[in-house]
Amino acid sequence: MSAENKQYRLAARPVGTPKDSDWEFTTEAIPTAEDGEVVVKVDYVSLDPAMRGWMNDAKSYIPPVGLGEVMRAGTVGEVVESKNDAFKVGDFVSGYHGVQQYGKSNGKDLVKVDPSLAPLQSYLGGLGMPGLTAYFGLTDVGAVKEGDTVLVSGAAGAVGSMVGQIAKIKGARAVGLAGGVDKCRYVVEELGFEACVDYKSDTFLQDLKEPLKSGVDVYFDNVGGDILDIALARLNRHARVVICGAISQYNNTTPVQGPVNYLNLLVQHARMEGFVVFDYIQQYAEGTKQLATWYSEGKLQFKEHIDEGIENFPTTFLKLFTGENFGKLVLKVSED
Amino acid sequence: MSAENKQYRLAARPVGTPKDSDWEFTTEAIPTAEDGEVVVKVDYVSLDPAMRGWMNDAKSYIPPVGLGEVMRAGTVGEVVESKNDAFKVGDFVSGYHGVQQYGKSNGKDLVKVDPSLAPLQSYLGGLGMPGLTAYFGLTDVGAVKEGDTVLVSGAAGAVGSMVGQIAKIKGARAVGLAGGVDKCRYVVEELGFEACVDYKSDTFLQDLKEPLKSGVDVYFDNVGGDILDIALARLNRHARVVICGAISQYNNTTPVQGPVNYLNLLVQHARMEGFVVFDYIQQYAEGTKQLATWYSEGKLQFKEHIDEGIENFPTTFLKLFTGENFGKLVLKVSED
Repeated sequence: MSAENKQYRLAARPVGTPKDSDWEFTTEAIPTAEDGEVVVKVDYVSLDPAMRGWMNDAKSYIPPVGLGEVMRAGTVGEVVESKNDAFKVGDFVSGYHGVQQYGKSNGKDLVKVDPSLAPLQSYLGGLGMPGLTAYFGLTDVGAVKEGDTVLVSGAAGAVGSMVGQIAKIKGARAVGLAGGVDKCRYVVEELGFEACVDYKSDTFLQDLKEPLKSGVDVYFDNVGGDILDIALARLNRHARVVICGAISQYNNTTPVQGPVNYLNLLVQHARMEGFVVFDYIQQYAEGTKQLATWYSEGKLQFKEHIDEGIENFPTTFLKLFTGENFGKLVLKVSED
Repeated sequence: MSAENKQYRLAARPVGTPKDSDWEFTTEAIPTAEDGEVVVKVDYVSLDPAMRGWMNDAKSYIPPVGLGEVMRAGTVGEVVESKNDAFKVGDFVSGYHGVQQYGKSNGKDLVKVDPSLAPLQSYLGGLGMPGLTAYFGLTDVGAVKEGDTVLVSGAAGAVGSMVGQIAKIKGARAVGLAGGVDKCRYVVEELGFEACVDYKSDTFLQDLKEPLKSGVDVYFDNVGGDILDIALARLNRHARVVICGAISQYNNTTPVQGPVNYLNLLVQHARMEGFVVFDYIQQYAEGTKQLATWYSEGKLQFKEHIDEGIENFPTTFLKLFTGENFGKLVLKVSED
C-alpha cells in the first residue's frame, strides 16, 4: 500500500479542451478518521462527461469544483479505517471521493457494494450511475413502451449501451449510433441491439434509412450537435427526446450548437426533456435493485475501459471527448 | 353584393419574406352549390403566422398549398346558397375557405357561429383557432397550475393575449413579452397581465429581472430566436416550454436559429413540447364552450386588427412579421 495520497486538483478553469496546466498534481498524507468518519482506499475513479461541466464556473445542478479542490469524481474502494458503526474495515463502497487514492467521508454518501456479485468497477458503470442514468432516463423521462423504436447515441458508451439493453427488456427496438465499425459490431453482436449505425461513415445518413424506416419514438441523446438534429428530423408523432448530455459541445469555446430542427417538436407534437440522475436520488435503491436483478438473469452486459495509474488522469480523461474509450471509462488508482 | 369572386392564389414558393410576385390575383364566377354543398360569402379572412409555413414545399402537419391554388386561410362568413340540410341561407359559419370572397364546402369543415354573442370576427380570434391554441397549449401541453409564473411571447397577439388571460383564470401569474410601449400597456392595463416587458427596449434584459425574479414555470413561445433562449435561461425546476410557433424564423433564408440554451432543460429537468391546434380537433367543441363561457362571464377580452379590401391581402399579411398589427389580424373581404 502506498504511504501517500496522490491527488489531482483543479488548477484553472479550462477554456475548451482541458490542458495539463488546468490540473495540479499533489501528494498528501493519508487522511485519518475522526469520530463518525471512514477512510476509503480508492481502487477505481469514474471518468464521466459530466465532470467537464463541473469544471466551469457556471450555475448548474450542483456547484462547480472550486479552484484548488480535489477534482470531483465517483469512486469505488475499500474501507481501511472506520469510526462509523455502519462500516467496517474491508467493506467495499461506492462514493464521491474524487481523483485521489484515499478519501474520507461521514458515510452518508457511501453505498456498500458487493464485488462477489459483479466486478468492483461495474459499480461505476452498468450497476452504478451510468446504469441508473439509462434506467430512469429511458423508463421515466422517455416513457418507453413496447413496440417503440428507441434510438440512442453513444451506443457503445457507459449510458448508451445500457439504454439499448433496457429498451429491449421493455419490448422496444433498439437502434444505436456509435463511432466506428468495431463499436457498432459490439453494440449489435454483444449487446443485442437490432442495429447500430456508424456516424463516422461517409454513408451515415443513407445507412440510417433502413433501421429508422418506421421513425423514432424515443431518442436518447448523449451527444448533442448535428446528431441531435438528425434525430429530431426523424421523430414520430408524440415522440420523446431525452436530453441526457451533449458531449460534442462540452469543450466548445464557441456557443453551444442549438438544435435547428427543434420545430419538428411542433410538427410531431413531440417533447424534449432533460434530466440528471441526481434528480432520482430517492429511487436509487429501487433502480439499483432492478439493474442487479436483470444482470443476475443474464439480461444486461457491460464492459469497462480500464486505464491504470493516477498520474495518467489528465490524458485518460480526454479519451471521453475523442471517443477513444470503448466501454465505461475508469482509472485504476490503487497501486497494490 | 359583388357579382364576382376575387381571390389570391399562390403563384410561387417564397424565398424569405413573401413578395407580390409570389401571389396571383384572380377573379372567377361565384361558385354554385351541388347536392350536399353550401356556398359561403366570406366576410373576414384570418391572417395567421402558420400560413407562412403552408407556403413552403415541405413535409409538415398538413400538405403545403399547391402552386396555383387559392391561398389556404380560416374564414367567417354567411351561407348564401345551401343544398345541405344542416345549413340554411343566412347561417354564419367559420371554415377554411381561403383568401377569396366566396367559397363552397360540403359542410363537414364548417362550424356555425353566433354573431349575437360576439362580433363575427371574434370567431377567427379569441373564440376561434387562436383562442383554442392558447387554451389547449397552456392547459394540456403547458400543464399550467395555480401559482405558476407563465411567460408568453407575442403577448399582445391573437394567441399570446389569450394565454395570459387563461393563465390568470387558472390562478397563475401572467408575464408578457411584446414589442413596444403601447402593446405592453394594453397587455397590463386592459388584459390584466401582472407585467409586460418590451423586447424592443434597450433595457429589456434588465426589465425582465423583477417580473421574473421567481423564475419561469411555463414559457409559451410564439416567436423563437433569441427570446426563446432568454426564456430557457430563466426556467425553474420541472418547467414546461410550449412550442407554439417561431414567427421570428418563418421568413429566414438561413437555417432556423436553434435554441442554444436547450441544455438548461437538462439542468432544470424541464421539458419543451410542441403542438398544433389541429391535434385537438376532437376537443374543439369542449374548448370553444369553455372560452365562450369565460367570455360571457367577462373574464376574457380580445381585439382584432381589421384591414379592409381583398386587394390588400399581400400587404396586410406582412404585418404579421413586422409586428405592425395590434390584435388578431383579419382582412375584411366582403364589399357590401
